[in-house]
Amino acid sequence: MKFKINIFLKKGVLDPEGKAIENALLNNGYNKVNNVRVGKTISLDIKSDIKSDALEQVTLMCKEMLVNNVIEDFEIVPSEEDK
Amino acid sequence: MKFKINIFLKKGVLDPEGKAIENALLNNGYNKVNNVRVGKTISLDIKSDIKSDALEQVTLMCKEMLVNNVIEDFEIVPSEEDK
Repeated sequence: MKFKINIFLKKGVLDPEGKAIENALLNNGYNKVNNVRVGKTISLDIKSDIKSDALEQVTLMCKEMLVNNVIEDFEIVPSEEDK
Repeated sequence: MKFKINIFLKKGVLDPEGKAIENALLNNGYNKVNNVRVGKTISLDIKSDIKSDALEQVTLMCKEMLVNNVIEDFEIVPSEEDK
């Protein structure tokens, strides 16, 4: 069972990587760009046929290990894509 | 107009960061995890009311600056979310 975990910095948390990308784009003529933020996506398989079990596992691993709750938000997207 | 750009390593390209996360999860008892891959998400605003124009700009900046075409694939998702 495949999942995607989207991890984003919370609103209000400074995002220097996004700012650097924004400046680089502006300096290269993309002058309509604004508010660039960078996040992370983790895709993974869970060896389980029971969707609720798998989702619970993924939620737990996000809270315990993958996500820094102080500065980051996450969402879990069940995915059938092969990416 | 808001867009999300999802950038992933192409299939067959080694993903050491993903492998490290996978090993960490396995070592901490999440033994059903498999095939962990890490990608990047860039969210940005384009100051334009014409969707096709904005989309063209975003595609161009992906090809020219944001994505390494040798090892990465990307998809552009128009987004109404406030993230």
